[in-house]
Amino acid sequence: MRQVAILGVGQVPVREHWDTSIRQLAIDAARAAMQDAGVERVGSIYVGNMTSGNLNQQRQLGALVADFLGQWGVEAVKLEAACGSAGSAMRQGIIAISSGEMDAVLVIGVEKMTETPGRTTTSALATAADADYEIEHGVSFVGLNALIMRRYMHEYGYDRRDFAPFAFNAHANGSKNPYALFRQPISQKIWDNGRIIADPISLFDASPIGDGAAALLLVPAEKAPEAVRVIGSASAIDTLAIHDREDILRLQAAEKSAKAAYQQAGIGPDQVDFFELHDAFSVMAALSLEACGFALPGDGVKMAMDGDIFPGGTLPICTLGGLKARGHPVGATGLYQLVEATLQLRGEAGDAQIDGARIGMTQNIGGSGATIVTHLLQKP
Amino acid sequence: MRQVAILGVGQVPVREHWDTSIRQLAIDAARAAMQDAGVERVGSIYVGNMTSGNLNQQRQLGALVADFLGQWGVEAVKLEAACGSAGSAMRQGIIAISSGEMDAVLVIGVEKMTETPGRTTTSALATAADADYEIEHGVSFVGLNALIMRRYMHEYGYDRRDFAPFAFNAHANGSKNPYALFRQPISQKIWDNGRIIADPISLFDASPIGDGAAALLLVPAEKAPEAVRVIGSASAIDTLAIHDREDILRLQAAEKSAKAAYQQAGIGPDQVDFFELHDAFSVMAALSLEACGFALPGDGVKMAMDGDIFPGGTLPICTLGGLKARGHPVGATGLYQLVEATLQLRGEAGDAQIDGARIGMTQNIGGSGATIVTHLLQKP
Repeated sequence: MRQVAILGVGQVPVREHWDTSIRQLAIDAARAAMQDAGVERVGSIYVGNMTSGNLNQQRQLGALVADFLGQWGVEAVKLEAACGSAGSAMRQGIIAISSGEMDAVLVIGVEKMTETPGRTTTSALATAADADYEIEHGVSFVGLNALIMRRYMHEYGYDRRDFAPFAFNAHANGSKNPYALFRQPISQKIWDNGRIIADPISLFDASPIGDGAAALLLVPAEKAPEAVRVIGSASAIDTLAIHDREDILRLQAAEKSAKAAYQQAGIGPDQVDFFELHDAFSVMAALSLEACGFALPGDGVKMAMDGDIFPGGTLPICTLGGLKARGHPVGATGLYQLVEATLQLRGEAGDAQIDGARIGMTQNIGGSGATIVTHLLQKP
Repeated sequence: MRQVAILGVGQVPVREHWDTSIRQLAIDAARAAMQDAGVERVGSIYVGNMTSGNLNQQRQLGALVADFLGQWGVEAVKLEAACGSAGSAMRQGIIAISSGEMDAVLVIGVEKMTETPGRTTTSALATAADADYEIEHGVSFVGLNALIMRRYMHEYGYDRRDFAPFAFNAHANGSKNPYALFRQPISQKIWDNGRIIADPISLFDASPIGDGAAALLLVPAEKAPEAVRVIGSASAIDTLAIHDREDILRLQAAEKSAKAAYQQAGIGPDQVDFFELHDAFSVMAALSLEACGFALPGDGVKMAMDGDIFPGGTLPICTLGGLKARGHPVGATGLYQLVEATLQLRGEAGDAQIDGARIGMTQNIGGSGATIVTHLLQKP
């Protein structure tokens, strides 16, 4: 199989884009990636998106975006795995290149969640969970994560305030990212004033939705020796409903996909310089750290409390704000993570630059851990 | 690249499955395909589906289906390209095998369109078209196809009754398929009694929706020398909105994907023994025949009038009923076509068997020709 390189990146700021349509968001990010790569024609386009079918009354985004990019006749399709849609699109882009079938692939993540008259985002997000066995009983998506966080606190003896450093880190880092939705660091006092959303999850333990799009232009690595290289790529599923898991504090799909990615890259967790993880909720950040071998079970929160996750720590995470501060345009998030990791490895992360970053990891999660996609990128 | 073989097929009858959930439909078809192949564990699962996000309030079908199939830890994702979703899922399954990344892949198409309280199927289907430039103006999906058919009649001088042989063929063939929704041949009198739905499209020019699921188990061809082989596979897009096309009577994405598939297979249209085409509307069947080199522009309807498309004709189409009689569970249809073509090539099509079938073609269309996926299969 051919190795894959990231030749171009593009993103639009995560915002409430009231006067920009979903197609335009996707096109803006895609054009930026194509311009960055100096590539005008691609073989295929994979679009990650979760909710356009009902929030925007628009399906067939693959053809729509390809059409408005002027890429007539190419292959194009949308991939959906809830909040893991963009990471899943990246997987297919990589396979298309590695198979030898395509020589230039555009991977786009896009989501337009505001300006959706008459349709509620909470209902749309609930479709990530099991409609018959979870949602039917009235539990919301944040409610499911609250159950997991409550169990974590009970099992390992933490207080809900112990999770605050995840938010401090994300917001401090987001303040250095011009594409982030929130650009102010937060203090303990601000955190304390965050209202409870679904006990024990408070405002700053949860990520904000937003409108956004991010894109990558992929090529075979042999054609771009100077470009950031994909050295590991894997995806795995777990049960959709959290009550079906042996242990709701174990992200088995993260363990499995990270292990596969490490094996492909021939490295271990100790060689990862930074980690763009899926901090949709603080407890998910802790579980990701544990599942990927950076902390023992129950020590993910301790890592945050000790400052290991901050810039300059042993494993900086969410270096450009993460889902909490950059924002979480659900089906686009996985691509934002990959764009950010690429910028870090190119040394183009501005004030948020991690010194000496050589290997970066990204992890995109769909649902409460049901679909997890892990990538490892390396500086050329 | 490795060649791909179809080791197992599975399908459920297209019906109004009032007491079967979308997950169960998918699982039933998938289990049948796995059993047919004698394979118990796969590397990845690609699920084609269009409307589950709003009609069933369920997203993340990849993980859901993999979970309930007991395929924990595999890679799984949903693909969506409107009515071309299942064909698009097949494309990714093929690429996953040909890349060398996977050794056994399950491809499933599923749609559950009845029992969707409070949500209308017509609105859900309209999301296949351009929300801003087509649907916003009040045109429905059948309305768009009526515009195309009207133009066809005007341009080539046909009467709407000239399209009837497409329906006669489909319903006669569907009567021999136990999985078909409609199992009665229709007469000219019955056709004449079909009410106008969107002038000039009448009842029997349009395909019925339904609930259904179909699945294939793919493996590398070298591991299954006795299995039906995929000798051509390609997908292409056209503009989403039909008013953006140079010529609305030309399915450019069909031309392009068919041409690519012919090249891969090293054959021409004259070597194709039967064609499972996407007769969502009769005019689309005519346009597919023309785009793929079986008829000159304007002669697609003549081919039907001459009986060339019937069993025993020069190019039998919709041999097990097509979308019109087997039924059109939108995101599943592309897989039904592939299952049916495989059965024909195995000689397992029962009363509908095409004698001496050696090479079969399938073509799955998303929207009014915006995404078109073409496959060529060969008897081992």
